[in-house]
Amino acid sequence: MPRPPWPARSGERADERSSVNDLLARFQETWAELAPVGRRQDGGYDRFAWSDADLELRAWFRRQAAERGLAVEQDRNGNLWAWWGHDPGEGLPPVGALAVGSHLDSVPGGGAYDGPLGVVAAFLALDVLRARGGARGTPVAIVDFTEEEGARFGVACLGSRLSVAAVDPERARGLTDSTGTSLADAMRAAGADPEMLGDDRVRLSRLAAFVELHVEQGRHLGDVGAPVGVASEIWPHGRWRFRFEGEANHAGTARLVDRKDPMLAFAAAVVKARESAAFHLGLATFGRATVQPNATNAVAASVEAWLDARAPVEGDLEAIVDAVRAEAAAAARLQGVTVAISEESRTPAVTFDPSLRARVGGALDGTAPEMATGAGHDAGILAAVVPTAMLFVRNPSGVSHGPGEHASDEDCVAGVRDLARVLGLLLS
Amino acid sequence: MPRPPWPARSGERADERSSVNDLLARFQETWAELAPVGRRQDGGYDRFAWSDADLELRAWFRRQAAERGLAVEQDRNGNLWAWWGHDPGEGLPPVGALAVGSHLDSVPGGGAYDGPLGVVAAFLALDVLRARGGARGTPVAIVDFTEEEGARFGVACLGSRLSVAAVDPERARGLTDSTGTSLADAMRAAGADPEMLGDDRVRLSRLAAFVELHVEQGRHLGDVGAPVGVASEIWPHGRWRFRFEGEANHAGTARLVDRKDPMLAFAAAVVKARESAAFHLGLATFGRATVQPNATNAVAASVEAWLDARAPVEGDLEAIVDAVRAEAAAAARLQGVTVAISEESRTPAVTFDPSLRARVGGALDGTAPEMATGAGHDAGILAAVVPTAMLFVRNPSGVSHGPGEHASDEDCVAGVRDLARVLGLLLS
Repeated sequence: MPRPPWPARSGERADERSSVNDLLARFQETWAELAPVGRRQDGGYDRFAWSDADLELRAWFRRQAAERGLAVEQDRNGNLWAWWGHDPGEGLPPVGALAVGSHLDSVPGGGAYDGPLGVVAAFLALDVLRARGGARGTPVAIVDFTEEEGARFGVACLGSRLSVAAVDPERARGLTDSTGTSLADAMRAAGADPEMLGDDRVRLSRLAAFVELHVEQGRHLGDVGAPVGVASEIWPHGRWRFRFEGEANHAGTARLVDRKDPMLAFAAAVVKARESAAFHLGLATFGRATVQPNATNAVAASVEAWLDARAPVEGDLEAIVDAVRAEAAAAARLQGVTVAISEESRTPAVTFDPSLRARVGGALDGTAPEMATGAGHDAGILAAVVPTAMLFVRNPSGVSHGPGEHASDEDCVAGVRDLARVLGLLLS
Repeated sequence: MPRPPWPARSGERADERSSVNDLLARFQETWAELAPVGRRQDGGYDRFAWSDADLELRAWFRRQAAERGLAVEQDRNGNLWAWWGHDPGEGLPPVGALAVGSHLDSVPGGGAYDGPLGVVAAFLALDVLRARGGARGTPVAIVDFTEEEGARFGVACLGSRLSVAAVDPERARGLTDSTGTSLADAMRAAGADPEMLGDDRVRLSRLAAFVELHVEQGRHLGDVGAPVGVASEIWPHGRWRFRFEGEANHAGTARLVDRKDPMLAFAAAVVKARESAAFHLGLATFGRATVQPNATNAVAASVEAWLDARAPVEGDLEAIVDAVRAEAAAAARLQGVTVAISEESRTPAVTFDPSLRARVGGALDGTAPEMATGAGHDAGILAAVVPTAMLFVRNPSGVSHGPGEHASDEDCVAGVRDLARVLGLLLS
């Protein structure tokens, strides 16, 4: 098996290159390259799958791989793999290979760290490992999963879900973005072949483990004073669409008693979602709503809104969603409108592989607290097929999916070093 | 003063042409011509000022005028005037002229009747008058006011407001539609000159009266069993913009206590608006809202929403809006978000000219009940300068600003005949 040479950098010794200060400088340099891609005026990011911004990010990924002598392949579902110690031209990787990575796409106006930090950290952790002499004989892949946020085509973790055969490829090809462009057309426009989409479990079955580093999406690590944490589990979660249909009417003449105003039923559901989430110690959010005809002087004809709900255990998730459903139905009845509720996605609880978690914890000498998360991740999807683990990097703002998301450079480097320790242990 | 000849129609006698059956047939024929213009698949209408649909409607107006030998002028604000008994090429109309009409534009997805019924009825009422020998010496104009709904550029009754100098022309030129096109550019694209916009009170001062027929926008006439009613007054009303600003966050990870969710404050305002309107016997509606970033798995960063409020008297209107303001502010404080509230427009109560109302009531032999309305109209705007009156035609559905709006052909013809009676009396 070919082993690409360590990329030559003049005047450096391996031990210098892995020093913390050098790592900090290299992190900052790499981060600065990514900063302008897909950045909006308000500081948030629009990095949607197969968009121009995404193609720039993919080109950046290939450059990072090329600088390190890693061979890149794009798998059937559009995910990118940069291989150390394996030539993808020769076929599938050997059994026991490791994979590490995350995603490069964002929600609309999202933060800079959610996704990209995991990919950058993977490249730098591999550098650290190689500078230390690395492993012997076990290939390592750095992976960029596509459409993790589901921000363009509506299905979160689409790239990994397709790979584990959790989404029908025909359905995936037909998914459309807000302008009506299908995934198939968006892929073709980007030079990818949508006919190839589908089950990639044979590839995944070769992996001994997948490790994903991710910026924390709450403030737990800030509260406990740790720069890095280890994921214990992902809460069960899902998305439900509520379509309230009433009757458009004149806001200045229709008597209150004659109205069929869907906005009032929607408002009741919003209030109940917060209330029931608080009661059941879970999360429930209406963050997306579309009003028709959306005219100032017209009673709305319809309100379409999406509930995102999560809870530590299935029973609580069920209870939260049931409470919102019941309130929406009662409020709709009261207002003379109808409500149609459909489950758009539902992901059961994921408990990360206990033996892998124990090894990760050991590699970090017990310095990284274990924590559950409400967010879905590719590592959670892949867990159905491959042992997976996740590291989180402290985000003191607690903000996620917004420009306020932040991790200090020092904490990012701490994440890189811990990721390198984990990979080192898994490769030993 | 030239008097255009009655348009020749073969084999008809004047008394036949004014018979009810003939009028019904001519109403249906004219109505059918308008039916396809700007019609959406759901049966609603998109007829926005200076759009292609509006230009088609203006061409229709000119054809109707030409068939009747009426000369058409477009005034400085884009309103169309079709003159009987006056040649606009010779200058302003003589003092004492009459005007009758309404508007042809619609809200998004609006009904067919709101506006166009008044213009069609004006043409047909003039036919009836002329068939009966008409008036002697007093010119009559049929008018189509532009952007009455404010659906494209946000200011209701823009054409009539400009004419009575209630809107600054510089501000009007700079108003933009949802795609960012300014009124000035939209007018230029339609071949009109936006530099001419402005005060047209000299023209309006020549009018002895303006009479507007309009489809009813509630179900009062249905309840009392009358096909036609007479407006007594227009309630004071206004529009207020509420901008709730919070912080975008991850719906799956941000703890409830850490959130700044503007959707919850908005929902509280929606509920309070209905509650306070019911308490004060007025109307209050949130029918328009825009959410940012509007992603399923993100807590909203901002919600912008518009309150439309109306009440029989100023004090009640004030009380309703104050209650919604207070609730929005309290809910915003509770959620850690901010709310900025601005008054976008405010129209005081309009009491229609009492002496004109008495004459209208007399012309209809007391068969038409008087009624107040919460809706603004060009007749309400012009009332600042000209004696104005309004007739309403029964709309049993009570629906307005939606496809469900409807008046029977028979009631529409009853409206035409009553309008002809009113004009006949005013011309006598």
